[in-house]
Amino acid sequence: MKHQDLLFTNDVAAELDKIVKDYGAPLTFILVDENTRHHVLPRLLSSATALSDAKIITVKPGDINKNLDSLALIWSELQNGGANRRSLMINLGGGMVTDMGGFAASTFKRGLRFVNIPTTLLSAVDAAVGGKTGINFNGLKNEVGVFNEADAVIISTCYFSTLPVEELHSGYAEMLKHGLIDNEENYNRLLSYRIEDADSGRLLSLLRESVMVKRRIVEEDPHEHGIRRALNLGHTAGHAFESLAMRRGNPIPHGYAVAWGCVVELVLSHMKAGFPSSELQRFARYVYDNYGSMHVTCDDYPEILELMHHDKKNISNEINFTLLSGIGEIMIDRTATEEEIKTALDIFRDLTHQ
Amino acid sequence: MKHQDLLFTNDVAAELDKIVKDYGAPLTFILVDENTRHHVLPRLLSSATALSDAKIITVKPGDINKNLDSLALIWSELQNGGANRRSLMINLGGGMVTDMGGFAASTFKRGLRFVNIPTTLLSAVDAAVGGKTGINFNGLKNEVGVFNEADAVIISTCYFSTLPVEELHSGYAEMLKHGLIDNEENYNRLLSYRIEDADSGRLLSLLRESVMVKRRIVEEDPHEHGIRRALNLGHTAGHAFESLAMRRGNPIPHGYAVAWGCVVELVLSHMKAGFPSSELQRFARYVYDNYGSMHVTCDDYPEILELMHHDKKNISNEINFTLLSGIGEIMIDRTATEEEIKTALDIFRDLTHQ
Repeated sequence: MKHQDLLFTNDVAAELDKIVKDYGAPLTFILVDENTRHHVLPRLLSSATALSDAKIITVKPGDINKNLDSLALIWSELQNGGANRRSLMINLGGGMVTDMGGFAASTFKRGLRFVNIPTTLLSAVDAAVGGKTGINFNGLKNEVGVFNEADAVIISTCYFSTLPVEELHSGYAEMLKHGLIDNEENYNRLLSYRIEDADSGRLLSLLRESVMVKRRIVEEDPHEHGIRRALNLGHTAGHAFESLAMRRGNPIPHGYAVAWGCVVELVLSHMKAGFPSSELQRFARYVYDNYGSMHVTCDDYPEILELMHHDKKNISNEINFTLLSGIGEIMIDRTATEEEIKTALDIFRDLTHQ
Repeated sequence: MKHQDLLFTNDVAAELDKIVKDYGAPLTFILVDENTRHHVLPRLLSSATALSDAKIITVKPGDINKNLDSLALIWSELQNGGANRRSLMINLGGGMVTDMGGFAASTFKRGLRFVNIPTTLLSAVDAAVGGKTGINFNGLKNEVGVFNEADAVIISTCYFSTLPVEELHSGYAEMLKHGLIDNEENYNRLLSYRIEDADSGRLLSLLRESVMVKRRIVEEDPHEHGIRRALNLGHTAGHAFESLAMRRGNPIPHGYAVAWGCVVELVLSHMKAGFPSSELQRFARYVYDNYGSMHVTCDDYPEILELMHHDKKNISNEINFTLLSGIGEIMIDRTATEEEIKTALDIFRDLTHQ
């Protein structure tokens, strides 16, 4: 696995100038979506002198456009812009831009160098780091892609001040997940911070700690054959909630689904692995206070189970979970019966006041 | 780089049964084109018992179909067939099938295991080994892809008996190239064998030696940052000839272009690196006797130079060549001026009786 530079800074332009100069790339391309093109790019271009000749590639925003058409458009623009193997691509945006841009860069002429600059908390803590690139295909999320880490990721909190508070909470859920799988100290620090305060210096330090949890795990198992599945905590139930909400025509932010999914999976952890009841209560309360709840009834259970059965992480007919026997005590590749999952959903509803 | 099994055998079905059993893959997919579906697949299916439940994916034949539409079709069929990360894909065909199938497998759910079974001499000695996967895009060859080696390649001469002799010569040109960059012994053995005789036992042994030359070089430099460019001998001029013939509406087999390209580049090697004149004469005679010549006139030179300038391997405005100072004496990243190239083309025409 190549070495990836993770740079934590609030002077993105200076870091970028350094990288472009160090790489000596004759041509630089910047991928943005229409939102980051208007709200983030102008400021960056005005201060990063090395980008004066950069070519801009713009895609439509939103997960729905993380598709083959947009990918083909990026490849075409790289081709028309004369990209060669020494070119550099900069992905400036949320997870949609870094996922798809990373895949485009990894495959154009069998691989250009690329740098991610996440502009949302969620992408900073999750998508931009760890080498999972890809697009959705035929309605399935991240169905096509490669594992390939960005040459560098520049992580900054300077783009977060204009994000809606819901976006901040969504990203923070992945940080909480990292805290849960890391250790009590990290986890307690996260529970005592209020993301709404957006004290950006403190957030950058928490973010660095959180990203480093992911980095350590990914370095140990880049292709997700084992311990990387620890990062899936909350995601089996979370993805099912996310898909259910999508089908209902009322999509929920990814991090909210993960927060609720973590509650369900900590219930299972308590039932099957001895995760302490007091910690479960404490986490559930925090989630309810900050994220509210996912409204589900018994009638939704069959659909939730069916969605869990379709999870990419399953390798046979059984539903795969990552559980914890305590904060930082990871148990990957655990399964649960449908009855156990239904019980966990009952308790989840109870814990989140439904 | 993962370890790749190279299996040389004339009992393909037995090897395949062993692999499928060893991998314990719950689902197997076989990619074929319409030609290999009719001419090769039935015999394999009738003798490989492990393939009884395999799902067949068929694409249209020919380099022109090595495109995004076919790739999307393969992804869809994998998806509809329920492929997961433990599935196995078998690419049965020429370079078009192994290149595109390798790319599809490398990217579906971020990577399935795959096995190549080349059915032409050209793909056995070149495309199926070394991890270059990809498709053509917007009219440019292999514009999109990844470096990813097949988990195993099963190499057999049993499919060659029905190939037209032109196809055999085309593949043999890449073997000659491997001989030139390897050593005199290997090279002399190749020059004294007559591919038309198709003594398949002897050919399998020559093929093994030839594939091992490529494998050694690829292991040293999988991503073509250096010595792997040795394998590009003959390909700067060769690709230009191939594209020129294509534009003229009279396409030539890849190996013929490489054979003629090798003559041009050995002329340059003689001019610029002291490659012995006697060896140049000997090689040129062999090529003329077996491949005839590429008809070009002085009027074609500007177009040939323009095509050379567009080569993917160039990293600046200069045209990049691999040259030899002797058999097995490799010099990568050499450049030549337009005047030198024109002179080499003059001598090429002379050596091939034009």
